[in-house]
Amino acid sequence: MKAKLLLVLIVIAGTVCLPGGLGCGQPTTPRGATELALPPPSTSGEVSVEQALGKRRSIRQFRRQDLTLEQIGQLAWAAQGITKPDTGFRTAPSAGALYPLELYLLTRDGVFRYVPKGHKLVQLAEADKRGDLARAALGQPWVSAAPLDFVISGVYARTRAKYGDRAERYVILEAGHVAQNIHLQAVALGLGSVPVGAYTDEAVSKVLDLSAEETPLYIIPVGYPAG
Amino acid sequence: MKAKLLLVLIVIAGTVCLPGGLGCGQPTTPRGATELALPPPSTSGEVSVEQALGKRRSIRQFRRQDLTLEQIGQLAWAAQGITKPDTGFRTAPSAGALYPLELYLLTRDGVFRYVPKGHKLVQLAEADKRGDLARAALGQPWVSAAPLDFVISGVYARTRAKYGDRAERYVILEAGHVAQNIHLQAVALGLGSVPVGAYTDEAVSKVLDLSAEETPLYIIPVGYPAG
Repeated sequence: MKAKLLLVLIVIAGTVCLPGGLGCGQPTTPRGATELALPPPSTSGEVSVEQALGKRRSIRQFRRQDLTLEQIGQLAWAAQGITKPDTGFRTAPSAGALYPLELYLLTRDGVFRYVPKGHKLVQLAEADKRGDLARAALGQPWVSAAPLDFVISGVYARTRAKYGDRAERYVILEAGHVAQNIHLQAVALGLGSVPVGAYTDEAVSKVLDLSAEETPLYIIPVGYPAG
Repeated sequence: MKAKLLLVLIVIAGTVCLPGGLGCGQPTTPRGATELALPPPSTSGEVSVEQALGKRRSIRQFRRQDLTLEQIGQLAWAAQGITKPDTGFRTAPSAGALYPLELYLLTRDGVFRYVPKGHKLVQLAEADKRGDLARAALGQPWVSAAPLDFVISGVYARTRAKYGDRAERYVILEAGHVAQNIHLQAVALGLGSVPVGAYTDEAVSKVLDLSAEETPLYIIPVGYPAG
C-alpha cells in the first residue's frame, strides 16, 4: 500500500528519480499528443565513413527546401536510433547505457520529440518555433532559415545516480557523439549542418518547454546547402 | 625590445595565452623528439555512414594483434585530421576554429602526440604506458589490452579566451565529436573501440605528463574485436 502510494507520488511529480536514475526527468507526452511513425531507417548507403569525414563542413546557408520525412527519420535515427533492440543500445554510446539525452526537432510543422523505441516522433507543438529558437540563440539566422533544427538536451540526474560528479562531463560528451552522428549522416544525405552552442539556456528551455531537469546542450540546424 | 622580452618569456613559460587564446597550453615538443610521418589518410572506403552507425558497439575485448601504421594514421585523421588545408579545418567542428583538443596515442612502442598539420606523430616516450593508463582508469583491463589507446585532452583556456563561461561545455562537446569519429572509423576499418570516462584525471595527466592547462577528457581503446 505504501509502495503504491510512493509510486503514485513519483508519477505525479514526474521528476523524482527511481533507484538507478530511472525516470529522472523523463519527458512526459502531452495527453492526446499526435504520434508520427517514421519510415524505417536505412542501414546502408552510398557515402563511406571516410568520404563523409573528409567532406563535412559547418554549413550556415540553407536552401529554402523542406526535408522529407525519410530524411528527418534517418537523421533522428543517426542521432539516437536503437541499433540493438534486445538491449536498447543506440547509434551513440552512453555511459552505463543510461541514455540521459533527449532529442527535439523543430520544423515549419511544429515541435517534435524523437522516441527511439519504435522510431517515432511525438508532436509537442503545432507552431513553427524556429524563429523563437533563433532569437534564443542570439539571433543566429541559420537557426530560423534551416528546414530542420535539432535540439539535444541532457538530463544530468539520470547519469548522476550512477556516476556522481562525473555525470555532467559524461552527458556533454554524449551530446557531442550524437551531434557528430547528425553531421556525418547529413553529409551522407547530401545535406549540411552546423553545431550551435551559443544561446541562452533558459531561453531555449522556454521555447521548448523543457523540464527543469533538462539542459539544452546543442542546437543543430540541418538543410540543403545553399549555392 | 620590451615586446621581444615578453615573447621570450611567453615562449619559456609555454602556458601563457597570447591575445585570442593563441598559444594557450600548446604542448611543447621535447628537444630531439622523433617525428613519425603517417601514410596519407584515405578519403574513400567500403563502409557507409549508415552501416557504421548501425554496427557500432562498445568493444571491450581485443585480439592481441597490433595495428598497422596505416590504421593508426587513419584513426588519428578521423579524430583530428585537417580536411581543408587553407583554413586548417578538421574532421570534427570546433567552436571558433580554436581547436582546444590534443590527441595522444599509446601503443607498445610508446606515447605519441598527433600533429594535424602535416599528419604526423611526435614521440613523447618510448615506454609502453598502457598498463599505467589502465591503472589510472581504475584498472579497466581493456585499456591495457588494446593495441592502441587514444587519450583526448582539452585545453579550456584556448576556448575561454573567446567564449568565456561556455568554454568548458564547448570543449567537452568537441571531445565527444572526436570520439564518435574514432568509433565510426574503427568500425569502417573492421576494428572496435570503447569510450572510457572513468579514471582519475590527475593520474592520467601524470601518465602522459600533461601540462596543467590540459584536462584528460576521454580514453578510447581501439583494436580488433576478440572472438
